[in-house]
Amino acid sequence: MSDFNRRQFLATSALAGASLAVSSSLSATQPQAPVMPKLLHHVFFWLKNPESAQDRAQLITGIKTLAAIETVRSFHVGVPASTEKREVVDNSYHVSELLGFDDVAGQDAYQVHPIHQKFVEQYQHLWSRVVVYDVLAVD
Amino acid sequence: MSDFNRRQFLATSALAGASLAVSSSLSATQPQAPVMPKLLHHVFFWLKNPESAQDRAQLITGIKTLAAIETVRSFHVGVPASTEKREVVDNSYHVSELLGFDDVAGQDAYQVHPIHQKFVEQYQHLWSRVVVYDVLAVD
Repeated sequence: MSDFNRRQFLATSALAGASLAVSSSLSATQPQAPVMPKLLHHVFFWLKNPESAQDRAQLITGIKTLAAIETVRSFHVGVPASTEKREVVDNSYHVSELLGFDDVAGQDAYQVHPIHQKFVEQYQHLWSRVVVYDVLAVD
Repeated sequence: MSDFNRRQFLATSALAGASLAVSSSLSATQPQAPVMPKLLHHVFFWLKNPESAQDRAQLITGIKTLAAIETVRSFHVGVPASTEKREVVDNSYHVSELLGFDDVAGQDAYQVHPIHQKFVEQYQHLWSRVVVYDVLAVD
């Protein structure tokens, strides 16, 4: 359960007061892990100047503007984590952007959205390589 | 707002009844997009037998067991989405698993968890290649 969902659930419980029946009913609809959007759009960027902290910060600033696009349902921007180095782990990228959408149509609308087009125009000089994975959830 | 959060919010609003002050206060804590866990662990699998729907279904069944691990905060399993084919899009993988954790320690605990170890043991004969990206959110 995410912190937000936990807070929300606790708030709900408080409102329900001693009504255990209502709390149980809400609790039953709570999945073990938070529900993710169905469509994931995961983009990995390799910078032209990997040593430039300024370039990385600029790209991250640009990526953050994408969260304002109406069809974006979840947003995560990050850098390689310091997990154990294993042969299967690719930590060669410099910046990661994960956006969640309700469906393929939401991602299509994002691609042609002026904010996204402005982002590409303004920041594409910073990266040398981009790899995109689009994933549709299975039931 | 995710469907789940929307349902939760509507349920909360219903409980609060006419108390607009309470509803507004809860609404104010709602971020524009759902809060994602800080640490993402995204795994892409290439099957040994890509044409086998049975192998793919088996692997997905196995991946779903991982959601029960205590440190897992979000869970998504899927297949390549039918988004536009562009040069930067890699849709050659067969199954995707995205797990969210609070931090690197949560992911480390997952790696050595018996459920994860059983998953690798039982299902690794199905895949020919795995690529892992671990991403830590930046503020």
